[in-house]
Amino acid sequence: YITTLAYKSDLRTKQQHLNEPLLDHRAGQRFLTEAFKVILEEVLCKGIDVNEKVCEWHEPEELATLLDLELRENGEQQHQLLQRVRDVAKYSVKTNHPRFFNQLFAGVDYHALTGRFLTEALNTSQYTYEVAPVFVLMEDEVLSKLRSLVGWAQGDGIFCPGGTVSNMYAMNLARYRAFPEVKLKGQRALPRLAVFTSQESHYSVMKAAAFQGIGTENVFKVKVDDRGCMITDDLSEKIELAKSQGAVPFLVHATSGTTVRGAFDPLEPIADICDRQGLWMHVDAAWGGSVLFSKEHRHLMRGVERWEPGLFLISSPFPQDLLKRCHSADATYLFQQDKFYDMSLDTGDKSIQCGRKVDCLKLWLMWKAVGSQGLEERVDRAFAHTRYLVEKMKKREGFQLIGKPEFVNVCFWFIPASLRGKENSPDYQDRLSKVAPVIKERMIKQGTMMVGYQPQGGRVNFFRMIVISPQLSYKDMTFFLDEIERLGNNL
Amino acid sequence: YITTLAYKSDLRTKQQHLNEPLLDHRAGQRFLTEAFKVILEEVLCKGIDVNEKVCEWHEPEELATLLDLELRENGEQQHQLLQRVRDVAKYSVKTNHPRFFNQLFAGVDYHALTGRFLTEALNTSQYTYEVAPVFVLMEDEVLSKLRSLVGWAQGDGIFCPGGTVSNMYAMNLARYRAFPEVKLKGQRALPRLAVFTSQESHYSVMKAAAFQGIGTENVFKVKVDDRGCMITDDLSEKIELAKSQGAVPFLVHATSGTTVRGAFDPLEPIADICDRQGLWMHVDAAWGGSVLFSKEHRHLMRGVERWEPGLFLISSPFPQDLLKRCHSADATYLFQQDKFYDMSLDTGDKSIQCGRKVDCLKLWLMWKAVGSQGLEERVDRAFAHTRYLVEKMKKREGFQLIGKPEFVNVCFWFIPASLRGKENSPDYQDRLSKVAPVIKERMIKQGTMMVGYQPQGGRVNFFRMIVISPQLSYKDMTFFLDEIERLGNNL
Repeated sequence: YITTLAYKSDLRTKQQHLNEPLLDHRAGQRFLTEAFKVILEEVLCKGIDVNEKVCEWHEPEELATLLDLELRENGEQQHQLLQRVRDVAKYSVKTNHPRFFNQLFAGVDYHALTGRFLTEALNTSQYTYEVAPVFVLMEDEVLSKLRSLVGWAQGDGIFCPGGTVSNMYAMNLARYRAFPEVKLKGQRALPRLAVFTSQESHYSVMKAAAFQGIGTENVFKVKVDDRGCMITDDLSEKIELAKSQGAVPFLVHATSGTTVRGAFDPLEPIADICDRQGLWMHVDAAWGGSVLFSKEHRHLMRGVERWEPGLFLISSPFPQDLLKRCHSADATYLFQQDKFYDMSLDTGDKSIQCGRKVDCLKLWLMWKAVGSQGLEERVDRAFAHTRYLVEKMKKREGFQLIGKPEFVNVCFWFIPASLRGKENSPDYQDRLSKVAPVIKERMIKQGTMMVGYQPQGGRVNFFRMIVISPQLSYKDMTFFLDEIERLGNNL
Repeated sequence: YITTLAYKSDLRTKQQHLNEPLLDHRAGQRFLTEAFKVILEEVLCKGIDVNEKVCEWHEPEELATLLDLELRENGEQQHQLLQRVRDVAKYSVKTNHPRFFNQLFAGVDYHALTGRFLTEALNTSQYTYEVAPVFVLMEDEVLSKLRSLVGWAQGDGIFCPGGTVSNMYAMNLARYRAFPEVKLKGQRALPRLAVFTSQESHYSVMKAAAFQGIGTENVFKVKVDDRGCMITDDLSEKIELAKSQGAVPFLVHATSGTTVRGAFDPLEPIADICDRQGLWMHVDAAWGGSVLFSKEHRHLMRGVERWEPGLFLISSPFPQDLLKRCHSADATYLFQQDKFYDMSLDTGDKSIQCGRKVDCLKLWLMWKAVGSQGLEERVDRAFAHTRYLVEKMKKREGFQLIGKPEFVNVCFWFIPASLRGKENSPDYQDRLSKVAPVIKERMIKQGTMMVGYQPQGGRVNFFRMIVISPQLSYKDMTFFLDEIERLGNNL
């Protein structure tokens, strides 16, 4: 009896409560405004200050304690939550910092970031004109402008969640074009297929072949020359090899700007081979594609207009609706066929996803802000900075370049004083391989800068310095060289 | 000669210029701050105001003109760019608005949004502890907490770009567990496979089967009962049917919360069948999984602990490293094996992607803010509001419910006065099918609210009202019913 009463009274309170929104918008907006100030201060002011650290290293156990990650029964006070925002910022790596050279992204663009904030606040999905009218039209404009950079008047395309998924799109479209029955019947109904890509292409080609049921053994790795570019004679040989094994070639995955060395595969002769053999040429330009903005450097991608570049762009020789035919599932709850507007604007069925984040606004707003000219300037500037760094590096003892950079990746060994002139001693390679990891550990623990290293092919660990951030100047290059010396000279 | 001189002088200017950063951080931060105010005003104040429109309809051509989307050679002034931010906000759909019921998302959570802003400002990628120390640990904590909701002490998981990709992960893992040779050799080396899912499951199952080389004809659609739940007897029959055709069953794709009707497949008996047959049970809980937060409603997913729920969670019966074994490509430039810290923290190779956006912070910060209790309250509240709406709907003429909602999807026909009592006339269904599209057109053009409709199975177009936003109250339900009547009564 008591329980029932309590339940009823509880129910009454609940019902009154149900008549009020659960959310206090004013308090929420106050919190967001305070948090914005913290973000501005910690991430965008301190985070770009060369007097502040790039990263603040902590062992995982210690960091977990500092962050107090545990999710509990009860919520927290606003001031505690604001402190959490501050802590997350504090202990995160500052990828906007002028001395962050660790990945293929760096620096901040405020218009792009504004585009992201606006996208997140609007929180819609890029599937129909109904819920994303602005972004359906905007994506179309950005893609069309990118296609015109390539040299195409017509075509199609889509923004994807990253380069790997874009490469998967290419693999799926190429397969579908050659064998449209794959959609219904699967890979089993097809002959053994063969994909061709260079030894130094991105590892996502392997991920895609595994994920899409093609199999990694059907990816034929084509040899590269000294600069890391695909050797087209070897491509022809590998195609013959695949055929002799009974496999059917369907896709050449070329790269404009390889991940480690920034090499550009020779697209003209590759396109010739693809033409002759009837293969789809995909160009993974996730890294190097920006050269198309530059009159001075776009020659690196000469031949790109002949087929299929970029991640998400396809050219007009293909049926206009190939993306849609390949990926559509015609969900009636989303892509109703009795809408009152032009339903070809509901572009979501071209995607392999259902909900798809809006990615076009960031690029669009940045482009509007600086113009094609400004984008070209950034590309040219990155090349100029790279040349400057390479010249300086040549003049310093202990820095040994791996080839002449074609792009903005500068690959080099640092040879500490103790190893110089000992190239012929039997343990040289072994000792050299241990240099980069130690320098890296020291720089992370001191937080002065971040740069990546890796072994590749027969080469032991070497550094890969990336020169792209528009906020760089000569003095950052000098700092970089000095810092490598400081951290590594006593090894 | 003149050209050369000009070129040299140009070069000198360029070189001076290269010694200065291209970016003006102060101006950039000023712009971001101004844009933040616009976002606050347009998206978060006006965007949630019931006196303002949910959407502002324009024909595509007109909208393109209003937005001036074209990307040009030259950049624009800051005040023009700020106006663009305002325009994008103005013409976008207000998904945060209390009268946006169009998709399976709605409303704003300020802590979650703060998490997104911070994520975007930090701009890192979720692949290594080196560049994402906070987020590697945070993702682990969030996933572990979600697993414990399911009832698992151990397991693995990953955040993916949406439910479709999560379903693809499940398909790939299930296939790999049954036939690990698929990674190397592809689907061709395997027997014909068979996937089972209900007739009303999400269309991404078909997309996944096509994309992953399994083939859509190998997806066996299992019948549903009146409520939209998978009929397990038919599942058993379909499994036998597949076997009789020589196919090898490997995966049952169950759904907790179907897209249109919000139905929960009966996981206990499905798990029994999967146990007996040795099949992987995947539970697509992208929509209904939140019931696990609620002591009152978690029974809807009874049986989920027996195998494989959620999108990105796998339980302990599987080898700890299944995700990694299935997806890894061991990129040496990213996942170096000679790092100075515990390299199992470089979780990126579990993913099918390379760069992966940080998705955990949004959920983590919201969870910290309201606690598990607050999340439970939201779930319970959504159920209570749904019950309220259903009761009110039953009392109004012209509203005809399609079944009793199990979840927060309320599916119904609106029967205009002219059609009432005419159920037996031969053109009734045809006329009824035209009601929802017209009401939808009217509401979009007037901007008063947004709600979805669709045909399904043998049912002509009906509305699907979604009741989840924490900012709803009773008066919004009343408004909804009144508005449907107002828009549709004269049809």
